[in-house]
Amino acid sequence: MDKNKRKIINDPVYGFIAIPREELYDLIQSPSVQRLRRIKQLGLSNLVYPGAEHTRFSHSIGAMYLMNQALNVLQEKGEDISEEEYSASLQAILLHDVGHAPFSHCLESFFFDSSHEDLSLHFMKDLNLSDIVTDIFSDRYKKRFLHELVSSQVDTDRLDYLTRDSFFTGVSEGVIGTDRILKMFSVHNDELVIDEKGIYSIEKFIISRRLMYWQVYMHKTVVGADCLLQNILKRAKFLAMNNDLLPNKYPITPHLLYFLEKGTRKIEDKEALEHYILLDDTDIWSSIKTWTSHKDKILSLLSNKLMNRNLGHLKIQQNVFSEEDLKQKRQALLKKYNNEFSLQEVEDYFSATNELHNRAYSFDDRKINILYKNGEIKEIYEASDQLDKNFLSKYIRKYYYFEQ
Amino acid sequence: MDKNKRKIINDPVYGFIAIPREELYDLIQSPSVQRLRRIKQLGLSNLVYPGAEHTRFSHSIGAMYLMNQALNVLQEKGEDISEEEYSASLQAILLHDVGHAPFSHCLESFFFDSSHEDLSLHFMKDLNLSDIVTDIFSDRYKKRFLHELVSSQVDTDRLDYLTRDSFFTGVSEGVIGTDRILKMFSVHNDELVIDEKGIYSIEKFIISRRLMYWQVYMHKTVVGADCLLQNILKRAKFLAMNNDLLPNKYPITPHLLYFLEKGTRKIEDKEALEHYILLDDTDIWSSIKTWTSHKDKILSLLSNKLMNRNLGHLKIQQNVFSEEDLKQKRQALLKKYNNEFSLQEVEDYFSATNELHNRAYSFDDRKINILYKNGEIKEIYEASDQLDKNFLSKYIRKYYYFEQ
Amino acid sequence: MDKNKRKIINDPVYGFIAIPREELYDLIQSPSVQRLRRIKQLGLSNLVYPGAEHTRFSHSIGAMYLMNQALNVLQEKGEDISEEEYSASLQAILLHDVGHAPFSHCLESFFFDSSHEDLSLHFMKDLNLSDIVTDIFSDRYKKRFLHELVSSQVDTDRLDYLTRDSFFTGVSEGVIGTDRILKMFSVHNDELVIDEKGIYSIEKFIISRRLMYWQVYMHKTVVGADCLLQNILKRAKFLAMNNDLLPNKYPITPHLLYFLEKGTRKIEDKEALEHYILLDDTDIWSSIKTWTSHKDKILSLLSNKLMNRNLGHLKIQQNVFSEEDLKQKRQALLKKYNNEFSLQEVEDYFSATNELHNRAYSFDDRKINILYKNGEIKEIYEASDQLDKNFLSKYIRKYYYFEQ
Amino acid sequence: MDKNKRKIINDPVYGFIAIPREELYDLIQSPSVQRLRRIKQLGLSNLVYPGAEHTRFSHSIGAMYLMNQALNVLQEKGEDISEEEYSASLQAILLHDVGHAPFSHCLESFFFDSSHEDLSLHFMKDLNLSDIVTDIFSDRYKKRFLHELVSSQVDTDRLDYLTRDSFFTGVSEGVIGTDRILKMFSVHNDELVIDEKGIYSIEKFIISRRLMYWQVYMHKTVVGADCLLQNILKRAKFLAMNNDLLPNKYPITPHLLYFLEKGTRKIEDKEALEHYILLDDTDIWSSIKTWTSHKDKILSLLSNKLMNRNLGHLKIQQNVFSEEDLKQKRQALLKKYNNEFSLQEVEDYFSATNELHNRAYSFDDRKINILYKNGEIKEIYEASDQLDKNFLSKYIRKYYYFEQ
Repeated sequence: MDKNKRKIINDPVYGFIAIPREELYDLIQSPSVQRLRRIKQLGLSNLVYPGAEHTRFSHSIGAMYLMNQALNVLQEKGEDISEEEYSASLQAILLHDVGHAPFSHCLESFFFDSSHEDLSLHFMKDLNLSDIVTDIFSDRYKKRFLHELVSSQVDTDRLDYLTRDSFFTGVSEGVIGTDRILKMFSVHNDELVIDEKGIYSIEKFIISRRLMYWQVYMHKTVVGADCLLQNILKRAKFLAMNNDLLPNKYPITPHLLYFLEKGTRKIEDKEALEHYILLDDTDIWSSIKTWTSHKDKILSLLSNKLMNRNLGHLKIQQNVFSEEDLKQKRQALLKKYNNEFSLQEVEDYFSATNELHNRAYSFDDRKINILYKNGEIKEIYEASDQLDKNFLSKYIRKYYYFEQ
Repeated sequence: MDKNKRKIINDPVYGFIAIPREELYDLIQSPSVQRLRRIKQLGLSNLVYPGAEHTRFSHSIGAMYLMNQALNVLQEKGEDISEEEYSASLQAILLHDVGHAPFSHCLESFFFDSSHEDLSLHFMKDLNLSDIVTDIFSDRYKKRFLHELVSSQVDTDRLDYLTRDSFFTGVSEGVIGTDRILKMFSVHNDELVIDEKGIYSIEKFIISRRLMYWQVYMHKTVVGADCLLQNILKRAKFLAMNNDLLPNKYPITPHLLYFLEKGTRKIEDKEALEHYILLDDTDIWSSIKTWTSHKDKILSLLSNKLMNRNLGHLKIQQNVFSEEDLKQKRQALLKKYNNEFSLQEVEDYFSATNELHNRAYSFDDRKINILYKNGEIKEIYEASDQLDKNFLSKYIRKYYYFEQ
Repeated sequence: MDKNKRKIINDPVYGFIAIPREELYDLIQSPSVQRLRRIKQLGLSNLVYPGAEHTRFSHSIGAMYLMNQALNVLQEKGEDISEEEYSASLQAILLHDVGHAPFSHCLESFFFDSSHEDLSLHFMKDLNLSDIVTDIFSDRYKKRFLHELVSSQVDTDRLDYLTRDSFFTGVSEGVIGTDRILKMFSVHNDELVIDEKGIYSIEKFIISRRLMYWQVYMHKTVVGADCLLQNILKRAKFLAMNNDLLPNKYPITPHLLYFLEKGTRKIEDKEALEHYILLDDTDIWSSIKTWTSHKDKILSLLSNKLMNRNLGHLKIQQNVFSEEDLKQKRQALLKKYNNEFSLQEVEDYFSATNELHNRAYSFDDRKINILYKNGEIKEIYEASDQLDKNFLSKYIRKYYYFEQ
Repeated sequence: MDKNKRKIINDPVYGFIAIPREELYDLIQSPSVQRLRRIKQLGLSNLVYPGAEHTRFSHSIGAMYLMNQALNVLQEKGEDISEEEYSASLQAILLHDVGHAPFSHCLESFFFDSSHEDLSLHFMKDLNLSDIVTDIFSDRYKKRFLHELVSSQVDTDRLDYLTRDSFFTGVSEGVIGTDRILKMFSVHNDELVIDEKGIYSIEKFIISRRLMYWQVYMHKTVVGADCLLQNILKRAKFLAMNNDLLPNKYPITPHLLYFLEKGTRKIEDKEALEHYILLDDTDIWSSIKTWTSHKDKILSLLSNKLMNRNLGHLKIQQNVFSEEDLKQKRQALLKKYNNEFSLQEVEDYFSATNELHNRAYSFDDRKINILYKNGEIKEIYEASDQLDKNFLSKYIRKYYYFEQ
């Protein structure tokens, strides 16, 4: 291996991370991966958890590190993994997030009507990698456990993000037994399974993920900030489409302007993809800063609110908000702003309503299977003394109404 | 406060712990509390987790620290707690474990047929404290929340031991959100309740406790070591009662000898209590070491096994072991030892069988109640989206058979 | 205190931080402090330490937390501190960095020919605070120890940044005994002193700071990245002054444009200050991203290098680089670029040379004094067995040459 | 490798430690190594740092883990290390402390007039290992760096104990950059050297070791407790030699009795060695507990003091205590005890005086050499900007007087 590429990265979460292969070093240096340095892992969560400034880049490196550990464990247990498969798995996980939009999930559907996974797959293909990499990523490779290490209900992606997000937010309760879970990985019929001794760690992992979901990812204030940001971009898009955004007077970056003028694109649109891969959090922030003095009152008002962390109010309830209720709330809002805006504007730009949902375990997705010493296999809900099917499949659904 | 008593203790778990009151300093210096320095918190668990050498002393100091934090939180929320009550609560938690036997739970029923809590209460009374201390400890004080901080399903005892045991064993998954839980404490109708925002932390706490229970406290190898130690003492008692222990030839400490000769005592036996409070782990270890060369083959064989961590084998199953099965196992064991011992001896000293059980939450004990912003109170199973009554009340029961 | 302002901030470094006063809550919400959320504490260090994404905002909150602890310690030791002084000290430390430029130290002299401290003082005055706040900040308050807690050789600023930077970079060796040092603070003749028992912690603090200086703050690759960024802005300024920056074609934010066209300003320039307080890291990044396709070859080439972490090469030596040596290096560089650029351009934009220096302890600054039990005071170099005057005063000076 | 021997140990300091070779598993199971479970790493330091209950056993496992890492680093850098040498180095470090006395350094010279290293070598030889193991341990192996990894000024022993002791005492300032230092290990002319980039970590390591020395190992209260324990054993030995110890009435363990009656032995004394290897902390504690009611007033008084943490007073000064001064102090002590004891007894059993010394770096020992990229070698004091010869060689010497 080229000495210059034998780098060690200092990671506050795991300590030293050695870049495990030369080709990985080259990929890390690629613009697609370097771009992830400018996209925060948790979007606007830093407005609530000031330590949560960590990026998709450090998450990708961390997940690569865990993948390396996992492959090692499996090889030590006698699993046959060729050098080509080994390297391809590392590449697949390193690149699994290259398709992410600025602000991660918050703006996921603003630019394209495709998921970030599909976008990742697209940009991977651009990198001229071996087919195995994309096959593993898109679950078309025969050794299915390699895909499952990249994406399943206990993959190296989740292991890293739970560990990392709980580290940087300071929510110590989110801590999971990553080391232990990795050591419990095994393969059975080409699928990833968990050794019997790992049951408690898996239970704990499922509960911690749920806790992080409600306490961090769906934190009231963060959801409110997301609504505000979405409303700002909705307004900017409206103005752009009506030639009222005035980018010469209120300069914004060209790649963001492209999407504001054209609207949400299809993944087949090559030109759009070229703009997209040059976008990151800084385009959004610098535009919003410019808009704080925009002549459009709605745009400038909302932009100022976000800049100064004036994040409005979010109400969460178990039932959907009735039309009647929403109507009343918007009327009140209209009054609050002294009828300066129309009812439609108030609805579109000063409020939002939607649902939040989460499920501890999905029965539709790839199973979490436990491997017993006697060779038997049981799905987690059968193996666990405690987490029964009822518990795991419970679909928690809540509704929120946001207003500024 | 006397300057010499304004001490700060360096605790690896919480950092600096200031001794909060002069009278606490004096209690810490008392022989009953100093004795806890020589009783390990987790008995023989250090044979599996080599870091788990921490003592009941450091746990008591830690629990006192958390009590101080908790009382502070409640006062800040406007709860009226007099200086006398404040100090008494600190004293009660500091002393809550003074009645523990050597090796903590493992030998709990060997010396007295009373619980360690009853013994703690007895030794507290010896210390001439204000009645409030013992009233709080034994739940006869009107402000019931003070007792609940000492002993309930989310008390400062559990908060400390889960945190401490997971720290010293290195089982990072046991980590709970102690800081956060403390901040969520409130009082409602003189009872301890948890603020609504603390629900997820409580769920997490319940799951972590369960994990620690099966992964650490009831770890197979630890349970086996406990059986071995209990069998050694059973044999020594048998010999002592038959004048075959020969303490002059194989010297042991006088306080242990007392109990070997007299057997398990009643809590009313003053003399026995006086011997008991002078016993700690070192009496047991030094005797076992002496016995490694004892002329009684059973005693010396077992003692050597424990000394050299030759810990036998434990089988765990969901059902009780049938008499037939046990009979067969003992016959095989008889053979293994070439009929050197009788069947009864094999049963009594080379094997053991019993049950293990645990329940995530007890409906018989004091409830964990959640306090909503609107003043409403719900028990945890009603408040939680996820932890329903079924889940919480499930009584996990397993059976083990141990043989040497 | 207004309930809505009684907030707790989750900090990964210290755990929960309660905002200690209502007026502090209001200041935190001010645009000057919120701006610090968009200025990274360590500028471009995240290119080497990917975890080092933390901001001046979280540092300011952290320093405020330590100040609160320190004032508490001093009050407990009997020091008289009025409520007004207490609050003012908290305000002074919270605001001590509001004058920082984007990218912190890297661009400190690009916008104004004043230090960031002077700028902080200016912006503080804008906030209409009590005079005590600015008096403490600028060392005109009689109780000098209050200023020393804000700014001296062992202040809460340094204590926080060493702890925080070592946490987020993952350089565990930088860890200092913050808790212990705070507990050792005392006051003697209105000056801050350290109790005798804290000597070793202070020695350790001095050595850790030095280590962080060379291993993190002046890390070769970081210094190189700083040179690259400075050269980019130098080129942009040159173009702007010659009307070649073309902001309509390559849009950049108005506040950055202001300084590129006008050059470095004096602190008396009100208009410049108004632009400055609206600038942060995102203005710089979004502009550099735009410039990657600029028609000026030098600007686009350099911008692309920074965007893709192509950070050039830095040579460090003990002696100043001779004119002869520099001449040769630049000639070689000229060749490397096939004479595409002039010698002057190569010197100005593709290379840089300067000195790095550090001193473990400054004899010009406020002393670190040790207070003995008998009331005696000694300066650290007299008190320490090991750190003598020679050692402490040694001025380490190194020279670097950077080229792209 | 035998599956049953492929164990993983949960270590709170490093996480999971896999036992790296089958033969290591066997050695860990040997009585000599198991005995280290009953000898605390830091003797009586737990009287000051209640978390410091960790044992020589966990230190030995930890040092083995670091050795494995170090050998790995060297192999990756191309160093030729045969499987035999690899395993032997692991064995040598695992066993390096088997010769330690109960209470580690405190009683080092009580049992034998040899160092614990010589005793370790003796017991290693008993284990019938390959000659390479003892050759490496005693520095007679050609590849000297293997010995240096076991014992030098930056060996895996020191790296582990500094890390471990600072973890368990909670003295966070003792933390060193173990991971980083290990990665900087190289070999040059068969000697261990440190890569240039590791200089700051080595400086830090040297300073941390010094801090731990004065703040933990030589903590005033710990030194006092050591004196007290030594005086107790001195008195017990005096009584034993005069047939006044009465072991039948005040039973103590036979192996301790052996040394009390015979006095300090020579390492050639086979019988003494056999007793020694069966001694650990529990023999001492159980005897002292028995002696609390001994009819010899001095023995019982001192024993009670230690049991109840009544640890006397220690005075430290820069100069040796004058005879005159000592005389006065002892006269006062005589009075304090109302002339109940003779002057000689007061001197021998109620007081102690001695020196404490430490040096940051020894010029007599194996050098710490720095390897530059250009192949040059410099000793640390030449390589470091800051730690000059003066500083490093300074021999700190202090004198203490202890009295009860």
